[in-house]
Formats: sequence, structure tokens, C-alpha cells
Amino acid sequence: MKEIEFLSEISAKDDGKKIAMHGWVKDIRDLGGLKFLLVRDRTSEVQVTCIKGKTSEKIFSKVSNIPRESAVRITGVVKKTNKTRSGVEIIPIDIDILAKSESPLPLDMVKESSVDKRFDNRFLDLRRRKNTLIFIIKSKMFKYAREFLDKKGFIEIQTPKIVSVGAEGGATLFPLVYFDKEAYLAQSPQFYKQMMQSAGFSKVYEISPAFRAELSHTTRHVSEFISLDVEMSFIDGIDALMDLHEDLIIYMFKKLKENHGKELNELGIDIKIPKKPFPRMSLKEVEKFTKKHASISVGAELGTEEEKLLGELVKKKYNHDFVFVTEFPWSARPFYHMKDGNITRSFDLLYKGLEISTGAQREHRIDILKKQAAERNISEESLKYYLQCFKYGMPPHGGFGTGLERILEKLLNLRSVKEAILFPRDPDRLVP
Amino acid sequence: MKEIEFLSEISAKDDGKKIAMHGWVKDIRDLGGLKFLLVRDRTSEVQVTCIKGKTSEKIFSKVSNIPRESAVRITGVVKKTNKTRSGVEIIPIDIDILAKSESPLPLDMVKESSVDKRFDNRFLDLRRRKNTLIFIIKSKMFKYAREFLDKKGFIEIQTPKIVSVGAEGGATLFPLVYFDKEAYLAQSPQFYKQMMQSAGFSKVYEISPAFRAELSHTTRHVSEFISLDVEMSFIDGIDALMDLHEDLIIYMFKKLKENHGKELNELGIDIKIPKKPFPRMSLKEVEKFTKKHASISVGAELGTEEEKLLGELVKKKYNHDFVFVTEFPWSARPFYHMKDGNITRSFDLLYKGLEISTGAQREHRIDILKKQAAERNISEESLKYYLQCFKYGMPPHGGFGTGLERILEKLLNLRSVKEAILFPRDPDRLVP
Repeated sequence: MKEIEFLSEISAKDDGKKIAMHGWVKDIRDLGGLKFLLVRDRTSEVQVTCIKGKTSEKIFSKVSNIPRESAVRITGVVKKTNKTRSGVEIIPIDIDILAKSESPLPLDMVKESSVDKRFDNRFLDLRRRKNTLIFIIKSKMFKYAREFLDKKGFIEIQTPKIVSVGAEGGATLFPLVYFDKEAYLAQSPQFYKQMMQSAGFSKVYEISPAFRAELSHTTRHVSEFISLDVEMSFIDGIDALMDLHEDLIIYMFKKLKENHGKELNELGIDIKIPKKPFPRMSLKEVEKFTKKHASISVGAELGTEEEKLLGELVKKKYNHDFVFVTEFPWSARPFYHMKDGNITRSFDLLYKGLEISTGAQREHRIDILKKQAAERNISEESLKYYLQCFKYGMPPHGGFGTGLERILEKLLNLRSVKEAILFPRDPDRLVP
Repeated sequence: MKEIEFLSEISAKDDGKKIAMHGWVKDIRDLGGLKFLLVRDRTSEVQVTCIKGKTSEKIFSKVSNIPRESAVRITGVVKKTNKTRSGVEIIPIDIDILAKSESPLPLDMVKESSVDKRFDNRFLDLRRRKNTLIFIIKSKMFKYAREFLDKKGFIEIQTPKIVSVGAEGGATLFPLVYFDKEAYLAQSPQFYKQMMQSAGFSKVYEISPAFRAELSHTTRHVSEFISLDVEMSFIDGIDALMDLHEDLIIYMFKKLKENHGKELNELGIDIKIPKKPFPRMSLKEVEKFTKKHASISVGAELGTEEEKLLGELVKKKYNHDFVFVTEFPWSARPFYHMKDGNITRSFDLLYKGLEISTGAQREHRIDILKKQAAERNISEESLKYYLQCFKYGMPPHGGFGTGLERILEKLLNLRSVKEAILFPRDPDRLVP
């Protein structure tokens, strides 16, 4: 007997073979003399066909009473057929109910339930094919991001999530009690990936959770998300960073298209590999560009509406889903971004009208950095360990941070970034 | 001119070529008419040779005054030589000090400083070759762990680190303020990777930070560590888990040996690939085995001393660095481990006398699970979302959790797990 790990392994080649398989009962159709059991797992669906007179009486009568979504183990014989999409059906010898499902189910498995119901019962919601596929693609997207960076000579690092000081300002910090001290959850690995430049590692990246206590109820904000952070030394501007970012996106998209076309197809997604270079516009150019088309005026940074509009305009004019916006005024950027006058050497990357990344060359000259911190009323004491590493040969450096789940949201046309997260966290949701 | 990204790119093949390179000044030797500048980066060291009369007077006089550990950019000509280990030296045309180091340095870069000084100035400590190498090897170990699991059909998942309930009991939880709610930092992804079994994903893994508020001052405990968690469905015992765990370790070790022999050699490490199967002993057998050799008596679990002794005995008797210990009494294990009578279907894996992993088949029958929780005085209310996912077809399943940094500690013979962490956290250390 052949032990089947995942249903996708079963094919017409197994015609006549005895197998053991397992999965969940998705559906049962009872046509009197004929009963069909549809069994599903992460990879596929297989039809089990019970025929009155041919299937043992014990199994035949048992089948109708198996509650949907029960976990089952089935032994049977594979039969080639052209009546099912997979090209096979299973003629059962024995059906073992490993775990009987209660009914009714807390979630309708056919029609879509409310968002709250879905996330409350995420274990069932994730059994729906579309949701399973999102997380298969997500896992592969992460794999290709790492693969690309590894090939480019980047070292993967892990930096602390419990920190003594925030990198993005105090308003969005989660405080926690760390033994007898006050600590916070890291908003980003910003300071640490910079310290790794002083440590001489140059090309480093981290893929790790980041935490923001934002009281936002939007489709683009969550309290915990996965951030891809990249940093490197010896740059002399942000062009190298934008080039690298483009190549990273193109690599991920290409590899997904090449190796996971089947899953993407099931999701109705045809990935268009973006052309290089991605359009690049200064904030001033964006201002002019959008003013021509709408009454929206761009200030020192782009809001949700401005981003959306810019995305649409770029799509129309350049037939491109991505756009780099550069030359933000320092007033709108973190204190550690490098300045050219009042303009920073920084960029945002937008994908289909959503900001997915922020990058910059960092100020590595300690005197100027201290001055910039003081202008923001950030005390030197709070930055003690950060500033320390600028004293002993901190090279010019820069990098960017990307919300991988936002990329996934836009790539798969999801309704919210939360759909790209297994168990999302927002001001109202701490469970499951 | 050839732009050199990392010093290891420069070889005798470049003899006569003009290059631009960057790095940190590790050492300067002034022999009067001859001055040597040793430049270092993450990958290698290169000697810059200044000769009075040949090197420009400006450069020649400047060199002696460059403080050690300054970041420099050097243009020059590569010269083949048999006087340096790398087989080349650089004849400088220009030296640009990108960032001057203050002196004296807060850390002696030749002699080893105290642990506190080292971690306070980790950015300098990490420039030492040995420490750089630890984190190159770490990054590759993670890469091969993922590669192995990906090949085996595992999906990488990310689960929340902000949670409403602890998986390992209340004593070692870090509480935090989550908007208006009390929340905790995840001690492990235990409950979530189990929920993913109910979601039908079967083979999943996560590599992510885990948090434990242990007031321990040991070489094996930290408050934040990287946990590799694995879970899979449709097992009928723990043998499949132990087999998988062995294969994972062997794969990582083999790949490191094959692809990073040079770095391991620099660290003085020759990886011995462990033989399969790893020795497996029940706790009772361990009791007998250790009693023969020492007065230590093994209780319901193994303490630090017992683990060390067992490690030594296994090494002597089986010439093996690993040992699985099985058949722990339920009293010593978490409530969700599956019982056979009073014994659990669980194991610990020890490597060189240090516990690196715990695994188990989980109780998937909700009635028994509820009873087991009640026996531990864990309220059903606190487990509401966890228990919910057992009602609708939760298959038999199990998995394990591994401290990757403990494996690295033992693999590289480090003095403490903290040496395997860039910025470690313990009850006394929250910075940098």
C-alpha cells in the first residue's frame, strides 16, 4: 500500500494501486445508489466514489453520516477517470474518521462570512482554497526574497524585538515591563541594522516582526507586521538602493511566476514582471503631475488619497505599477535621514498606489546626526548606544524597509493587508 | 578602475590592475621607509604597502596618522606577492578617510575584554574575526534549515508575537499594554502552529523570536531567542518527528561543512556529521545509565547537571554528540502533550549535553485535552480560541521546537548562547 502524504501526489499513473490517504471532508453528495465524498487537503481535492453493491455495506452506510470538515483517513484503490478534474477517483476499502467535526460549523464554508467571524474562526477560514493559496504564495515570496539577497552577498541577521528606545518616535510604541525596567517592542530594526554597518558587515537584511501601536482602522495598517529590512555600506546616494529594490521585486515576481503559476492561476492572478527602471519622481514632480489631474495638493508627504491618485496616474502614463518618490523635505522624514539642504536623500516606493517601502541614505557624520536629533528634541541620552557606534569609523550607508504583506496584498489584489496575515493584530483584535 | 565590494574579491589574478576598495584600518606598522596598512572587512584582510619615495609624499605622511578602526576608501594597484597570506598587496594611489575613529577605542581589539564591555560595544566586538564568522555561519545555518524544510514540503508561517495567552504557563511571560488590553509576548508559536494543523496546512514551520521572562543568570538562558518550530499532521507517534529532526540536523551540518569549510576552519571547527539514528533512550534507561556512573539521580526531568553527565556518557558509549530522551512523565510536561497512561509521547533532544529541542505528539481529542488542562488548573476561558480549533476535525499531529542559537553555541564551542546572539537580552541587559 502506498502512503499518500498530500493529495496532489495521486495521479492517473497510480491507476489500480492501493493507497492510504488523509484529508478533510469538504462535501458529500448522496445520489442514492452512488455517494461521492470530496476530500481536501492543502494541495488538492480528490473524489471518493462509493457504489451501492460494490462498496462494502458498512462503508456505504457510514459515508452519509460523516459531518463535513471531519478529518479522515481513507484506504482505497485509485481509478483513472475522465469524470473528475484530477483525472482520478478513489474506490474506498475503508474510511476511518480521525476527528469528527461538530456541526453546524461556526463559519459558512461556501459563502463568505463577516470579517470578524472569519478571523475568530481563522482555522476554518484558512481551509478555504483561496486563503490556503495566499499563504503558500506568501511563504514562497519570502523564500525568493531571501534567495535574492543571499545571492547578492547579504547576511541575514536577527536583532532584538525588546528594545529600550524607539526608532520611529514615541507615539506608536508598545510599552512592556522588562523585569524592573521599562522597555518597548521594536518598531523596526533600524538602529540595529545601522549598528551592523559600524560592525563592518555591510550588506545585511532581516525579515522579522515589527510592532506599531497605531490607532488606525484602515485596510493598510496592522499592529504587527513582517518587515523586510535591508542595509548596506559605502553608498554615495540612494540610486544603488533603488536599483537593488527593483531587482529584488523583479526576482520575487519572476520566481513566483515561473514556479507557482498553477497556484497563481487558481487565484486568477497573472503576474506582469515590472520593467526596469521603475519610474522615479521627486515630490515636486509628483505635485505638478497630480495637480494637472485632480484638486489634491501634495504637502510634505503623501497621504492615502495622494498615493492612490499617483498610482493611477503612473499606471496611465507609464503603464507601470511601481513608482519611486524622492526628495522629501527633512521635516517629513526621520532625524537620521541624510540631508542635502532641506531635502533628504530618501525615497518611498509605491505599488499600485500603496506605499510599500521607505529608504534613505543615513547621516553617518556624528556631529550632524547629533544636531539633527537635537532639532527633533530627541535627547542624546536616549540615543546613547546608537550614537556610540558612529564614533569609531561608521561608513556612509543606507537601506530600506519593506512591508512584505503589503506587497502580497497588492500582488494578489486582496481587500486588506490583514488578508495576507494568518492571525492579524489591530486595535480591536488580539485573538486568536 | 575596478570597484571592489568585498576584499575577498581581490586576488593575484588582479595583478597590475587599478582598483578602489574600502574597509576598516585594523593595524598600521611604521618601519620608517616602509609603512603597512592592514585593511579589514567582513570577508578578508588586505595589506596596503607604502614605500618612501614611491608612494606620494602626501599619502606616505598621512598614513601614520590614521586612527585604527577608521573607515577608509583606497585606490591603488594590485601587486602579486608571496609576502602576505592573501598573495597580494595594494600599492596605494589615494587614501580617503571616510570616517575617522576616535581613540582610544572603548574596547581592546587585540585582547579580549570583559563580557559587559564587549556587549556594551558590540559594534566593535563584532568586527573581531571570530565574532564576524559566528554570524556568517549562523546566517547560513538558518538558510539550510529553511532549505531542508522547504524541500520536505513544509510551508513557512509567521504567527503573532503579541498574544492574549501564554503557551508555556504564566511565570515566564512578559506583559505589555496592548491599547486598552493586557497582552503578552509569545513564549512560543505552539498554539498557532497547532491551529495551522486544524487549518489543514499540515507541514509548517516558523523561525521567529520567542520571549521568556526567566530570572536566570546562566550560559544557556536568554530572554529573547530564535526558535525553530515545526509541526505536522497525521502522525501516529513521535518516531516520524525524531527522524525528521535528525535529518534536519544532518542536512544543516553537511551543507555548512560542504560550503563553509573555510570559515569553519578559521574558527578551528571540523564538523563531524552525526550518524543516524541518533541514540534514543527512555527517561528510565537514562536513570539506569547515569546511576552506574555518578551519584546523580534523575527525577521527572533532566536538570543541567544530569544533561551534562548524560552527554558525556553518550559520547563515551556511542561516540555520538546527540541523544533523544523519551517517555517523560506527564507531570513534567505541558498539558497538551499526548499521554500513554502517565507517560507522554514526547522527547527532548540533547546536543553535547545541552537540551536543544522538545517535541511531542499533541493531544488532539478535545475531551481529553480539556481534562488535561483542568488537571493543571488552566481555565477553559483562557484557552477559548485554542480549544475552538479542536472541534472541527483536528487531525492527530505533533512537532518540535528547537533553539537554533543553542545548536550554534555547541557546534562552534562557544562559552554561552549569548555569543550566538548579536544583541542578547537577559535580566540585566536591555541595551544596546
